[in-house]
Amino acid sequence: MKRISFKQAGLKYTLNPYDEPIIRIKPKETIVVDVEDAPSGQIRKEGDVRDRDKIPFGNPVVGPIYIEGAKEGGTISVNIKDIKPTIGQGSTYLSEFNQRYLTDVPILRFLNSSLPRRTKICKIKGETVQFDDLTLPYRPMVGTIGVAPHPQAESISSSVMPGQHGGNMDISDICPGSTVFLPVFNEGGFLYIGDAHAVQGDGEISGTAIEMPAELTIKVDIAKGSINWPRIETNREIMVATSTSAARSFEDAIRTAFLELTMWMEEKCGTDRLDNLMLCSQVGRIRVGNLWTVAAAIEKKYLKK
Amino acid sequence: MKRISFKQAGLKYTLNPYDEPIIRIKPKETIVVDVEDAPSGQIRKEGDVRDRDKIPFGNPVVGPIYIEGAKEGGTISVNIKDIKPTIGQGSTYLSEFNQRYLTDVPILRFLNSSLPRRTKICKIKGETVQFDDLTLPYRPMVGTIGVAPHPQAESISSSVMPGQHGGNMDISDICPGSTVFLPVFNEGGFLYIGDAHAVQGDGEISGTAIEMPAELTIKVDIAKGSINWPRIETNREIMVATSTSAARSFEDAIRTAFLELTMWMEEKCGTDRLDNLMLCSQVGRIRVGNLWTVAAAIEKKYLKK
Amino acid sequence: MKRISFKQAGLKYTLNPYDEPIIRIKPKETIVVDVEDAPSGQIRKEGDVRDRDKIPFGNPVVGPIYIEGAKEGGTISVNIKDIKPTIGQGSTYLSEFNQRYLTDVPILRFLNSSLPRRTKICKIKGETVQFDDLTLPYRPMVGTIGVAPHPQAESISSSVMPGQHGGNMDISDICPGSTVFLPVFNEGGFLYIGDAHAVQGDGEISGTAIEMPAELTIKVDIAKGSINWPRIETNREIMVATSTSAARSFEDAIRTAFLELTMWMEEKCGTDRLDNLMLCSQVGRIRVGNLWTVAAAIEKKYLKK
Amino acid sequence: MKRISFKQAGLKYTLNPYDEPIIRIKPKETIVVDVEDAPSGQIRKEGDVRDRDKIPFGNPVVGPIYIEGAKEGGTISVNIKDIKPTIGQGSTYLSEFNQRYLTDVPILRFLNSSLPRRTKICKIKGETVQFDDLTLPYRPMVGTIGVAPHPQAESISSSVMPGQHGGNMDISDICPGSTVFLPVFNEGGFLYIGDAHAVQGDGEISGTAIEMPAELTIKVDIAKGSINWPRIETNREIMVATSTSAARSFEDAIRTAFLELTMWMEEKCGTDRLDNLMLCSQVGRIRVGNLWTVAAAIEKKYLKK
Repeated sequence: MKRISFKQAGLKYTLNPYDEPIIRIKPKETIVVDVEDAPSGQIRKEGDVRDRDKIPFGNPVVGPIYIEGAKEGGTISVNIKDIKPTIGQGSTYLSEFNQRYLTDVPILRFLNSSLPRRTKICKIKGETVQFDDLTLPYRPMVGTIGVAPHPQAESISSSVMPGQHGGNMDISDICPGSTVFLPVFNEGGFLYIGDAHAVQGDGEISGTAIEMPAELTIKVDIAKGSINWPRIETNREIMVATSTSAARSFEDAIRTAFLELTMWMEEKCGTDRLDNLMLCSQVGRIRVGNLWTVAAAIEKKYLKK
Repeated sequence: MKRISFKQAGLKYTLNPYDEPIIRIKPKETIVVDVEDAPSGQIRKEGDVRDRDKIPFGNPVVGPIYIEGAKEGGTISVNIKDIKPTIGQGSTYLSEFNQRYLTDVPILRFLNSSLPRRTKICKIKGETVQFDDLTLPYRPMVGTIGVAPHPQAESISSSVMPGQHGGNMDISDICPGSTVFLPVFNEGGFLYIGDAHAVQGDGEISGTAIEMPAELTIKVDIAKGSINWPRIETNREIMVATSTSAARSFEDAIRTAFLELTMWMEEKCGTDRLDNLMLCSQVGRIRVGNLWTVAAAIEKKYLKK
Repeated sequence: MKRISFKQAGLKYTLNPYDEPIIRIKPKETIVVDVEDAPSGQIRKEGDVRDRDKIPFGNPVVGPIYIEGAKEGGTISVNIKDIKPTIGQGSTYLSEFNQRYLTDVPILRFLNSSLPRRTKICKIKGETVQFDDLTLPYRPMVGTIGVAPHPQAESISSSVMPGQHGGNMDISDICPGSTVFLPVFNEGGFLYIGDAHAVQGDGEISGTAIEMPAELTIKVDIAKGSINWPRIETNREIMVATSTSAARSFEDAIRTAFLELTMWMEEKCGTDRLDNLMLCSQVGRIRVGNLWTVAAAIEKKYLKK
Repeated sequence: MKRISFKQAGLKYTLNPYDEPIIRIKPKETIVVDVEDAPSGQIRKEGDVRDRDKIPFGNPVVGPIYIEGAKEGGTISVNIKDIKPTIGQGSTYLSEFNQRYLTDVPILRFLNSSLPRRTKICKIKGETVQFDDLTLPYRPMVGTIGVAPHPQAESISSSVMPGQHGGNMDISDICPGSTVFLPVFNEGGFLYIGDAHAVQGDGEISGTAIEMPAELTIKVDIAKGSINWPRIETNREIMVATSTSAARSFEDAIRTAFLELTMWMEEKCGTDRLDNLMLCSQVGRIRVGNLWTVAAAIEKKYLKK
């Protein structure tokens, strides 16, 4: 099994179509990807803080991974097989970023006020994560998974902002057992991955989860068809993830996710999209990843065979 | 046990501080409220449609219920004890309203286009709801529960729009076993309730759930303290519900819900609000009621005793 | 000429269909309305502050004015003939409200931080307003003009929030020479007016303009047809004002305003709505009233005769 | 005077830090830039339509222009000296893009509905632009002006979406006589420019202005200090342009623009930011560029000397 590591590949902060692939793999190949944590390793013990003078950017990823046969206009699938912590711990912290995340207006700067800094180191043992004196469940997930956007018309995405190319979606359903489907904008796919979390709440409201360096085992394949937005299949559900952006409000992202889901259901099961919409109104579920990402889901048991 | 019914009280379409109370109850009293469904009874069989010429407004409620001892600035609690369908069925449908719900821009009117109308009658039997040939679980809930806003400064809310007074929140956790806490703006509380659903998905994306006439058994009480936004306590979680409004985006509603929740946790358990925020970032949950309502939740097992 | 004053009518903080009319007038009648300022007269000299313990609500209005012949589903017009300051001064100030206006998230409360309070008394002389040592132009306008919403289905609007009924739109084009068209939801119209400004910038960004008690001379009439949103005709332009609300983002309010304007142009001049849209894209103008109100305008010289 | 043309440089659809500079200039140098129109020259006569099969992307720009001495963290200024149409005409049209611009939800796709296509060729003669039988004023402007974002952490922006780097702001004040200030993220600045309009309304509501190929004369210089968002100085006003984005609502963009403007006024004139905020509330102006861009402005006559 091939293995790639941020130690060789370096820390990347964009999903970049101009970048040189760090590995070339075949469809159905399983590889291990060793990823650094979102604070780029700067927080390892109590009292450590994110130092932006030394490392200005956050949320490093590993890639691009070149998948043979992936073609522009097509789709790739990434099955998450395993997520293991590499140093037995993670961290969560408040930095300048969190202030912006909690109020996207420079009011605190205007008032010369700010959110305090705080760091917590959280030990991971077996199926648990220690948060101060509370024991949380270990529910590992991949925060950032996406492909490089089209070099000519789309942005080379920052690894922080999600979009139609995936990216920093922070959806807790991207966990062992799940498969993520991504549109392809570049020959070879140019897959990037990183930002593992030991556990994360909906909306990642403070701006950070339990961020951990981790070893990710993934199986990559070519999927059929063409898609507009990332799709996820878990053991129980299928879902479409969308993101807000300029002129797309959060409500519109929810609407878009459900409308895309109803069209996926029609395509997959032959059931009429309007009936699907009426069904989603009864048993559809919404997962909020972060304040930019939402997914609309339906359990597979409600899909016509 | 006292009983009130829409048959005597009439169908009301506002939460109105000028209205005459239809019943006066004591703290800790349990009553049964018989409510009509959201389409005001217009949809009983296949082919029925919402006729706005006959009944221009939707989402009728029953009230006001006057609670002795409820004082402006205080808080009341409403424990949902039971929700029973009264005619063994519910309905879901697409009407003109749904078009506006799915795109809050008059683009369809501009194009002389529109969403088709469609109606489904859904039989309710024991723990199931029949939706075409699919069997859905019966998960009854109260869509609309709120108090009349202050007559002098707040709006007499339409029963359709939620706010700090509660109202049409469509949160599926408002179900048997849960307690809703509401701020009081008028002496006596002026509680209104209605809009029962046999089952509803997150976001109620088509605009209607399985709407059913129902018999609601509720126990009302006076609670301590003063609150900004509705709070809900279920068997597993505590949560704060907020709503969007002019100048409060959906993201801001999520932020507000979590910040309020962290302050509630501090008030209740003595744990620091910043630590609470960091904890919510790991295990907090978001429930989207409808496209105007969101709740931030945390499981009670994570609260310090 | 009839005259009504807040001194007799009292300070009202809602546009209330349950209220008793304070005057009944005939179509085409001109009246004088004496209005108090937005801080309810609490700020008259340097050092005065808004005291919410004494007066909890803001933005008082005078009304309802009953217009004979105004029918539900119809339209009334209000021509602004004159706006005169009554005490030779106005005031602008930062209060708790401004904090919420500048950041609609309780982040400042969470941080126990807040915006400082500050008051400025501004003398009005002839065509000027004195703001510290700067001389600003006197450009008087009516901040709040609207009708009571339908008692059964719409809210009894707070005088602070705008909507399809008009209300606190803060559009500086509602000034001497302009005519405002409003939909009618109650027999008699139930017009309310108040919140005069000596001068106001787009967006009223601090939350207050130069607020002044004033004498407003208005001519009220019945207009033809039925409208969805307030319309304004100035000497140079026609415009449609819309407001944000739950699930209607600011971008959607802009889209709605322009689509409504193109349909008004079609109705008025027979020009095709798509051509009108393409024309507005070249010479349309946007006026932002406050952070809840936007108007789309076109100069009358571009309308087909 | 040096001259660069899209004919040699090619049509670029991103502001790309990986791109090779097409020209190197010295501070204070004036150059002429020959730009293609936003539809990449596909629309020259009635009946032409945007063909996305041939040219998938829109809004081409010319660049990057390398400015000697421009350093990361610094600021450059671009003075617009002249804008001349090169073929005596422009065009405006409805394409698939417009549909998304008018309603950012796939509701039309869901309904298999769409906005019709329509094209208008508009002759430009002297100070006028012919739009069907209406004569509009020629008010030329630059729609897109910006620098390449930082290659490591920011996106390589699509030429369609604006941001802190400038880009497709569509602000009509970027016209002859105005100076635009832009932050520098790459050594040499990496300036891109394009998307000339013969005239454009606020919000560019149909999605296209009178798009024209043009010859732009600009003078580029190094400015002092460091800025967060693009600033513009016209003959009458100073203004700050901001853009919406994921999690930054339109209201927040307006708030941010004004808060930034008040801090600029403090920096420039020594006047206190809170007083500046209160002044902007009286005489500030808002310009809406497109549905992603807003600018907050104040006339220079109100600034302390």
